[in-house]
Amino acid sequence: MKQLEERIRTEGRVLPGGILKVDGFLNHRIDTQLLHDMALEVSRLYDGCGVNKILTVEASGIALASMTGYVMGCPMVFAKKSRTSNIAKDVYASEVVSFTHGNVSTIMVSKEVLSSQDRILIVDDFLATGAALIGLREICRLAGAEVIGAAISIEKVFQGGGDRLRAEGLRIESLARISSMTDDDLEFC
Amino acid sequence: MKQLEERIRTEGRVLPGGILKVDGFLNHRIDTQLLHDMALEVSRLYDGCGVNKILTVEASGIALASMTGYVMGCPMVFAKKSRTSNIAKDVYASEVVSFTHGNVSTIMVSKEVLSSQDRILIVDDFLATGAALIGLREICRLAGAEVIGAAISIEKVFQGGGDRLRAEGLRIESLARISSMTDDDLEFC
Repeated sequence: MKQLEERIRTEGRVLPGGILKVDGFLNHRIDTQLLHDMALEVSRLYDGCGVNKILTVEASGIALASMTGYVMGCPMVFAKKSRTSNIAKDVYASEVVSFTHGNVSTIMVSKEVLSSQDRILIVDDFLATGAALIGLREICRLAGAEVIGAAISIEKVFQGGGDRLRAEGLRIESLARISSMTDDDLEFC
Repeated sequence: MKQLEERIRTEGRVLPGGILKVDGFLNHRIDTQLLHDMALEVSRLYDGCGVNKILTVEASGIALASMTGYVMGCPMVFAKKSRTSNIAKDVYASEVVSFTHGNVSTIMVSKEVLSSQDRILIVDDFLATGAALIGLREICRLAGAEVIGAAISIEKVFQGGGDRLRAEGLRIESLARISSMTDDDLEFC
């Protein structure tokens, strides 16, 4: 998606350790018009695939996932990272290693909001090692839900997670695909 | 907002300890069409007030805040609860006691995304004691930004936070206002 690539090129910043900072328009301050355009593009890519629910993980996936759900006419579910007092006791859970946070967390979805009737589109902001995607796919498997595919804002292709999951048969559509990143430059596929 | 009250009445559940569970349509699984209708209502309420930015706090405020930003043509900023590697070092910070989680957390916003030019609408899902709202207002004060008002999905009026803040001059618009809640019933104002 050219519009997103252009914003990453002009406003993104690469930090030491392979971190791409897109805080100004995607990940802290969110350009909501761009967000809507991205949701439209995801909707176009998965048009006619029978998606009936969007699944993401808190927190940074929620904005695109809810906008995509609105555009596609589907509800959105976000996996939680902690068991708060307002989540049901009975959950599907999976462990995820966060690349950005550098820790392991358990993500969970209440059994009440996911079922074997669901045809899921997983939405997330970043795809690097694929850990979050694997965790969300596992939660769908536990629920008996079918994963139609995944839609990602920014894929760091050079970290390999996306291609490994594609090789396993998962459809992944990334709106911007970064093939290489150095301290002062980045290239798109 | 009648539509929201009706959903709370039919699908909400009251848990011991004054927790209102709205996981099925607002807070875990999100009805994205309802979300859009709620954003339209917030936009109507604050029409002509010169709001130029929406502010919320992760995670559960993000969905309504980003949809409201889209509808009102404003960017959205969400305060973060942990300092991840992709947030700038220079932040405005404030402490918040969470009613639902039962702990104290620091919320922070990068200085890069909030300024004294901003006219802020604070958006959040719940208003009970008002702790999150006070924290977000404090962050605006530190940035020199003007708070135009707040928009809340569900206010637990009986917990008093909303009325205390209104008495201090803060405009608060809540889409559903619960005046009392027992283990098996709730009343709207």
